[in-house]
Amino acid sequence: MTQNNKNTVFSDVRSLQEMGEFGLIDRIQRLFNGNTDSQGIGIGDDCAVIPIDNDYSMLVTTDMLIEDRHFRRDWISAKDLGYKSLAVNLSDISAMGGKPEHAFLSIGLPDDISPGWLEDFFLQTHTACEQYGVRLSGGDTTKSPRPIVINYTVLGRICKKHIHLRSDAVPGDRIALLGNPGDSGAGFRLLKEQVPVNDNRHLRLIDAHNRPPLFVDEAQFLAQYSGVHALIDLSDGLRPDAGHIAERSNVIMRIELDTLPLSPEFTETCREFSWDMYNLALTAGEDYGLLFTLNPEQADGLARDFESRFGYRFSIIGDVQEGKADVVFKLDGRVKKIQTHGFDHFRSP
Amino acid sequence: MTQNNKNTVFSDVRSLQEMGEFGLIDRIQRLFNGNTDSQGIGIGDDCAVIPIDNDYSMLVTTDMLIEDRHFRRDWISAKDLGYKSLAVNLSDISAMGGKPEHAFLSIGLPDDISPGWLEDFFLQTHTACEQYGVRLSGGDTTKSPRPIVINYTVLGRICKKHIHLRSDAVPGDRIALLGNPGDSGAGFRLLKEQVPVNDNRHLRLIDAHNRPPLFVDEAQFLAQYSGVHALIDLSDGLRPDAGHIAERSNVIMRIELDTLPLSPEFTETCREFSWDMYNLALTAGEDYGLLFTLNPEQADGLARDFESRFGYRFSIIGDVQEGKADVVFKLDGRVKKIQTHGFDHFRSP
Repeated sequence: MTQNNKNTVFSDVRSLQEMGEFGLIDRIQRLFNGNTDSQGIGIGDDCAVIPIDNDYSMLVTTDMLIEDRHFRRDWISAKDLGYKSLAVNLSDISAMGGKPEHAFLSIGLPDDISPGWLEDFFLQTHTACEQYGVRLSGGDTTKSPRPIVINYTVLGRICKKHIHLRSDAVPGDRIALLGNPGDSGAGFRLLKEQVPVNDNRHLRLIDAHNRPPLFVDEAQFLAQYSGVHALIDLSDGLRPDAGHIAERSNVIMRIELDTLPLSPEFTETCREFSWDMYNLALTAGEDYGLLFTLNPEQADGLARDFESRFGYRFSIIGDVQEGKADVVFKLDGRVKKIQTHGFDHFRSP
Repeated sequence: MTQNNKNTVFSDVRSLQEMGEFGLIDRIQRLFNGNTDSQGIGIGDDCAVIPIDNDYSMLVTTDMLIEDRHFRRDWISAKDLGYKSLAVNLSDISAMGGKPEHAFLSIGLPDDISPGWLEDFFLQTHTACEQYGVRLSGGDTTKSPRPIVINYTVLGRICKKHIHLRSDAVPGDRIALLGNPGDSGAGFRLLKEQVPVNDNRHLRLIDAHNRPPLFVDEAQFLAQYSGVHALIDLSDGLRPDAGHIAERSNVIMRIELDTLPLSPEFTETCREFSWDMYNLALTAGEDYGLLFTLNPEQADGLARDFESRFGYRFSIIGDVQEGKADVVFKLDGRVKKIQTHGFDHFRSP
């Protein structure tokens, strides 16, 4: 019975490209829907949430990186790769307000990996674990016929009342941002277009791509405030990630472009190469900043508390409005159209 | 400081092959040793053990499969791959006596994967989840430049007093086995040597390789008995896995070869192709049977309880002796040497 009525999950399309990544995830969700019940929140948010007792839940996230798809050995050092592959998972735990605790690393290595590469990769992994208080609690090692493959699963813990979901935004909320959108995307573009890197601005952008700053402590701090509502990390890009909140919360996310905390390195480099600044800042992924919405009445108090704790401020970049799920950008009082979609692993070349 | 005294973890060898898989794992363990403390049992047993409250712990296992390394698309159907890739992880949870609960699947897919392949893979995954009461609670999908890559992380739960480790064997214990060692190895050899498969015996052996039977309920049943001591699943092969118990428990595992529960399909096929039966049964991996040791005074009672619950018996294949960690095989009262080692992902071709 189960077999019969589910027998057309994937057969309505002719290829994986036609399906796309979100199409694939959608179909997997549909198939396993009955399998994901009230015991936990399943496929879809930054992490799965597994209740462990009356007060606490476990957060679980997993992420696969494949060489020549997610990284290139000549664009990222073994050190940076060691850091970044763990960091992106810690960011997912942070994105729900949790404290990352245990990491599990599966790694597939081709024959030509040198002991020096391993030394750099694992020493940096060790350093990152110590920095963020995470334990490497297990894993798997295997030979790979060709690409380096890295899969992390990270477990975190969160007090149930501090869980923040993409669906928690409320009309009237302010939209806030930590981190500089576009830095990572610009760094990636410098690498991809093989621009001769000739100044510190370029190096800093490449660094933002290869060693994205994390907001682990900040996220845990924010998560404790009842005035903080939806929370997400910027992995797909500001526009698509704001879109995730819009869809899950069924609200309009209205963002004022001139309030975006763009770094001078970013704006100057965009000017230097005539890159479309807003397009890059809004659609390039892997920023790992934190995007959140907060009760407008608590916004000022929270901003002060945050600044006195961390010594810097978050940016208010817009507000949440009632209406059909959408992300709207305004510049100089007018709506500005931003074309393009988020990154789709199966559709892009 | 940390950097300095750890700066030679990998640089004593010239290549990954020279290091070998166990050498690599060893070095990673050494590096992260301080990072794995009394809060949990780290890298090394079948699963990591993470305490969640006074009574229960979480078990976590993770496993990476890469096409053309662990499987070939022309040797295993999408259905069987869907089943097996999950099954090997459930087996690890069983190997400590736990109940598998949540699965996280990361999958890297090349462009040429058809919707039909996905249909078979995911429907079978769904069936296996329902069969074993496991929830697919999250994951990651990505495009892969070439090989299919599958990484599962499975979480299970276990009552703390029912945890069984490789280090729990005691001199005097009986050694017991569930499953038919060698079936999977013979099936793999039939595939590898491209033998024209011409009878049901061959098909059954290939099936044992592609759809290994699991002992999930049996393991949970056994784990509740205080008379059951060490417990492990046969993933590396009977000899290496018995060796893991020997090393961790610092005992001699003495196995009587004529008591091994070899299947008629296996022995007849070995005869047909003049394969060294004991060598294959003891050194080929991926059997996923259960190997355990038990208090001799409770062995008979447990055997009866087990049979009345499951309708079949486990095999007693030897006993545990005091002495320097070793695995010894006896046949017709004499010690029999079995050459060869377990499978090493980095050393074998």
